[in-house]
Amino acid sequence: MSINKLRALIGDVMDLRHAADLIEWDERVCMPPGGLAVHGEMSAALRRLAHEKFASTQVGDALDAATQSVAGDDPDSTNARMVSVLARDYARATRVPADFVAEHAAAVSAAQHTWAEARAKSDFARFAPHLEKIVELKRRYVAFFPPADHPYDVLLDEYEPGMKTADVRRLFESLRTRQVAIIEALAERPAPSATFLGATYVENDIRRFAEDVVTAFGFDWTRGRQDKSVHPFATGIGASDVRITTRWVEGQPLALLFGTMHEAGHAMYEQGVAGEHQRTILEGGASLGVHESQSRLWENMVGRSRPFWNHFFPKLQAVSSAQLGAVSAATFYDAINRVQPTLIRVEADEATYNLHIMLRVELELALIEGSLRVAELPDAWNTRMKKYLGLTPPDDASGVLQDIHWAAGLFGYFATYTIGNVIAAQLWSRFGEVHAGRDSDIARGDFSALLAWLRAELHQHGRKFQPQELVERITGSPVDPEPYLRYLETKYAMH
Amino acid sequence: MSINKLRALIGDVMDLRHAADLIEWDERVCMPPGGLAVHGEMSAALRRLAHEKFASTQVGDALDAATQSVAGDDPDSTNARMVSVLARDYARATRVPADFVAEHAAAVSAAQHTWAEARAKSDFARFAPHLEKIVELKRRYVAFFPPADHPYDVLLDEYEPGMKTADVRRLFESLRTRQVAIIEALAERPAPSATFLGATYVENDIRRFAEDVVTAFGFDWTRGRQDKSVHPFATGIGASDVRITTRWVEGQPLALLFGTMHEAGHAMYEQGVAGEHQRTILEGGASLGVHESQSRLWENMVGRSRPFWNHFFPKLQAVSSAQLGAVSAATFYDAINRVQPTLIRVEADEATYNLHIMLRVELELALIEGSLRVAELPDAWNTRMKKYLGLTPPDDASGVLQDIHWAAGLFGYFATYTIGNVIAAQLWSRFGEVHAGRDSDIARGDFSALLAWLRAELHQHGRKFQPQELVERITGSPVDPEPYLRYLETKYAMH
Repeated sequence: MSINKLRALIGDVMDLRHAADLIEWDERVCMPPGGLAVHGEMSAALRRLAHEKFASTQVGDALDAATQSVAGDDPDSTNARMVSVLARDYARATRVPADFVAEHAAAVSAAQHTWAEARAKSDFARFAPHLEKIVELKRRYVAFFPPADHPYDVLLDEYEPGMKTADVRRLFESLRTRQVAIIEALAERPAPSATFLGATYVENDIRRFAEDVVTAFGFDWTRGRQDKSVHPFATGIGASDVRITTRWVEGQPLALLFGTMHEAGHAMYEQGVAGEHQRTILEGGASLGVHESQSRLWENMVGRSRPFWNHFFPKLQAVSSAQLGAVSAATFYDAINRVQPTLIRVEADEATYNLHIMLRVELELALIEGSLRVAELPDAWNTRMKKYLGLTPPDDASGVLQDIHWAAGLFGYFATYTIGNVIAAQLWSRFGEVHAGRDSDIARGDFSALLAWLRAELHQHGRKFQPQELVERITGSPVDPEPYLRYLETKYAMH
Repeated sequence: MSINKLRALIGDVMDLRHAADLIEWDERVCMPPGGLAVHGEMSAALRRLAHEKFASTQVGDALDAATQSVAGDDPDSTNARMVSVLARDYARATRVPADFVAEHAAAVSAAQHTWAEARAKSDFARFAPHLEKIVELKRRYVAFFPPADHPYDVLLDEYEPGMKTADVRRLFESLRTRQVAIIEALAERPAPSATFLGATYVENDIRRFAEDVVTAFGFDWTRGRQDKSVHPFATGIGASDVRITTRWVEGQPLALLFGTMHEAGHAMYEQGVAGEHQRTILEGGASLGVHESQSRLWENMVGRSRPFWNHFFPKLQAVSSAQLGAVSAATFYDAINRVQPTLIRVEADEATYNLHIMLRVELELALIEGSLRVAELPDAWNTRMKKYLGLTPPDDASGVLQDIHWAAGLFGYFATYTIGNVIAAQLWSRFGEVHAGRDSDIARGDFSALLAWLRAELHQHGRKFQPQELVERITGSPVDPEPYLRYLETKYAMH
């Protein structure tokens, strides 16, 4: 009975969160520009109500009662797990005072506005006071929680539950040397030809091709849709309505294709969460890192692989014959996998991507620890960019100002991109062990065994298991960079 | 101070209503089919929360305090009017017990589902028990309110505040004889040629033309958009985001055009509500009848007029030259204004439309009074259809089962369609008096004076004035069928 009471209370909270998510989707996809203010008020009201209903004494009391009632249950039962995830979320929601939440919301709103202006003018000094305020807020935020091994643990835990700063440091330590070695070795080789990627392609042809690809992956269009937006994203209103967006960038014809695969990877994860978790706290993904593992797996391990293009290149050639008719599958494969250090994270290839993340995480850590001042940030950024990627940003717009995350208050978030890459490779390697036909399936355009395995092992559980625990249940190992490094070294023929 | 407290409380309620409206728009325009259940839960949660927050003791207390604080104000001031509209809505919201609301919601949900099946099979008996339940609920609903002159007054008041059953009876009494006379006289004349309307047109060409027309009307695309849906509708998330939908019906190429004008008429009303009413109870339209006056005015008085087509016919010819190249503007005008009694309300022309409404209102009244049993309804429908329009439905699907309103529990709603027609003609006549260039403006495609007049006289006020009062303020007369009858008699050259 106490479990049902708790489920009913949380069901209301989830309805409000779904409504806010859908309204934010609308804002980015449908809303006419004049609607900005009224949408902002609606979203804020829904988020505030959802928070009030969640961080209420009713939920606290129901949670206490439910904790007692599941005490004798199998600790891996859905009810026991649901109660423990709820207890963690509830503790987080109730530790932070409402006036701090309001102060933080106002600060990040102003900071994002100024960041956009500062980036447009490449004027870091303009953004600096906002970032100082946000760093100060993050340090105050950490103080609401029990002392951790490292203050950054508290921030990281919000996006990657259970992950510690020490784990992240070890992870990057393992990645740094071998990823830099790959980049240096590739720099010695001649760059693959890729001029045909600079041709003019037809947006609708590429979009239809991308939709055919994710349909083959198993994206369920009866429980999803794709639209255009300025920045691509995926949003799930529960498992039965999961929407993705894409964009067309002139001069980067395949950004739409790989972006669609990436967002479909996120979306298929949410579509795969078991019906029993709908409208409960166990809806959605285990962590941002695990979520990113799904987008990266479909985008990179599948979508940039030789077997994939052996099957799909003739189809892409058929819709873009003027641009690709004279290109071989092998040349195309080399072109889409060429490694070329870039200043911009979102344009980075598989070999260099994690170095962009490492740079940001190191700087975040130093800001939170207080060993780096905001004023020193541009220099620290540029020094690391030179060291890891051999490049020097010509201005702060293509350097320290390129990403919105810090302006949005998302400290502790960047690491999850790399964690996602690493988990993707662990899953990919494990699936290869249990399913010998992994690559030959893909070469036939058959993704059914892969999706079924991901559903059974990972998707269905939603938030039931903590990320590290989930990865260990599936692969037999905690989060481990070795499969990712082997994957890269094999792909780029380092042996 | 007490006014500000009240405004803040109602602002929250309006945010929740906006969110529910937007989610219902999404359900009809964007939602993938699998999302139905989760959307239903979201909408229900938002409507329930909005109701709880509105019908709360906090709002009641704030309303009492505000009523005292505005006691000495100009009774036409925004605050005084806001308090009086709120008091009316609050009384309505708090008179009806929550368990009745839940019972009603369940009954209309089941009834609409069964109605769709019954209409598909033309099987009234299947729908009858649901309609009996709804009639019973409506009679119980009436009993929650103080005794009125007629029980139907309570139902009517929800859609057309201040309008009485006796007013509606008088209105229809005046319309009946002269509208039937017009129809009979027209039946004697040869029908205008309209075969070119049966040609195959290109949807996108007509849609673009329709969008050009409503752009010329003054529909503000920075605060609105148009999409496709099964049934056209307009929905406003406040004045700054008002969305319309349309549909393409094969064989009825101009349904999209006139439908777009109609919904744009509704939307321009909402877009014109003064900014000071945003997120207050005074947002939106004065009544359904006043709202319908705006859609009908733009669709019929403007959009089916000779001066309009003198200007726009060459433009329509240019995009549909194969279909209309050999047609004259005069022939086209006659074709789109031909009068032909039909069984189906939504296909009715201007001369016969009100008779469809009269039939429904008479039957509703009899059901609510208890003088007609549900089992007798199909015969009563067919008898009146023969009497008013000279037609006999071949089956109940094209007779008593054609409209969803009764299944949806919307008793008291139908009359507002006719009230809208009547008010439209009053406004049209009044605007002709104050603006001598009315018709010559339209013949130049210039609608700016008309829209500015409607904004100043009507739109900006939102719900500030009661419908009858508003019409009297603008036209000097209460709701009066005479201008509409004169408009029809002039249009169809009865003199």
